[in-house]
Amino acid sequence: MAGQHFAGIALVLGIAAGILMLLWNIHFRGGLNLDSENALHIFNVHPVLMFLGLIFCGGEAIVAYRVVRATKRAQKAIHMLLHLVGLVLGVVGVYAAFKYHRKLGEPDMYSLHSWLGMGTICLYGLQWIFGFVTFWIQGARTITKERFLPWHVAAGLTLFIMAIGTAEIGLMEKYTFLKSYGVISHFGREALLINFLSLIILLFGICTVYTVIFQPHAPTIL
Amino acid sequence: MAGQHFAGIALVLGIAAGILMLLWNIHFRGGLNLDSENALHIFNVHPVLMFLGLIFCGGEAIVAYRVVRATKRAQKAIHMLLHLVGLVLGVVGVYAAFKYHRKLGEPDMYSLHSWLGMGTICLYGLQWIFGFVTFWIQGARTITKERFLPWHVAAGLTLFIMAIGTAEIGLMEKYTFLKSYGVISHFGREALLINFLSLIILLFGICTVYTVIFQPHAPTIL
Repeated sequence: MAGQHFAGIALVLGIAAGILMLLWNIHFRGGLNLDSENALHIFNVHPVLMFLGLIFCGGEAIVAYRVVRATKRAQKAIHMLLHLVGLVLGVVGVYAAFKYHRKLGEPDMYSLHSWLGMGTICLYGLQWIFGFVTFWIQGARTITKERFLPWHVAAGLTLFIMAIGTAEIGLMEKYTFLKSYGVISHFGREALLINFLSLIILLFGICTVYTVIFQPHAPTIL
Repeated sequence: MAGQHFAGIALVLGIAAGILMLLWNIHFRGGLNLDSENALHIFNVHPVLMFLGLIFCGGEAIVAYRVVRATKRAQKAIHMLLHLVGLVLGVVGVYAAFKYHRKLGEPDMYSLHSWLGMGTICLYGLQWIFGFVTFWIQGARTITKERFLPWHVAAGLTLFIMAIGTAEIGLMEKYTFLKSYGVISHFGREALLINFLSLIILLFGICTVYTVIFQPHAPTIL
């Protein structure tokens, strides 16, 4: 199986996860609204934007660089812009979590989920700036770029896997809260939805990483 | 930095995580005992054995194959036996979780943690049998072995990362339960211990994977 096949499966899984994520937050959790008076509606912006940003856009940015047949410059532009959209959505998503805590008078940054998530998004921002300076505006000599490239790829994949892991942990945290407070039951519809959503996000992550592994070089037309 | 350095850091982190795991379960959670009348003491066997088995022994089995300087046969024996110890400890650890649920009259296999964990340990068992038949008792022709090897490595690393992910999710699940029921506070000593334990396990996982990446070939003396 070639990288393109994994890329295709990843896209289908990513869209499926996006639909389940929206269904969950709109149908079961009451909808999302960053300006709501209802703190829970503010919170719901968080998982949706984190998924759409760091995971879906971030994953597609990685995949695109290995499967989109275009000039090197166009490939870089797509890669960079998708990561930028991912980063911006992610920052708004993090803001939603802080705003929710503020509304409830809860402390921030107390759980592993928040530690990993904050680490991931800060490093993601640094990685983007580093990539922009080195590879887009050609701020480095060719030999330096060649030396940096494997590190850029390794760091990017590590951050992507960290984003997936943070999402899985966050979904498990929310699931456990809902179960502890008796909102959902062991095998109820919402419980199954959250578990399947988590599984699909995990499979999306695996297919994205496998695309890179099985498609070591970007196709170019120039 | 070479693979050996990551292997050394992984060993230190693994031992540190083991100490924190025991400290947590003995000092904060009341101790572990598979035959206890106290269901919680039965449960505590679960995280300790899963960590010692699939994660610590499994990780060291992976690392050993890349850094132990010995004959091919001795390397394989160490790799295979460490994975076997890991698998046996893991199976007893899973049994502890089921026994705990039985004691409380709780259902099994309802959360993402259990789904991922069961998938991981079943595939881990299959991978072990497959490796034993193919590479140890030489049940396959040389050309078949050569073709299988990259898949064995990829599947093994995937399962190791799944084990790490399952542990992180499980620790987050336990943490959230304890917080929901008011047993631990946001920044209390036990909360910090669980979060740091999770972080150290994650770093152990990263160093283990990086050992494989940065040490592509096993050193041999024959």
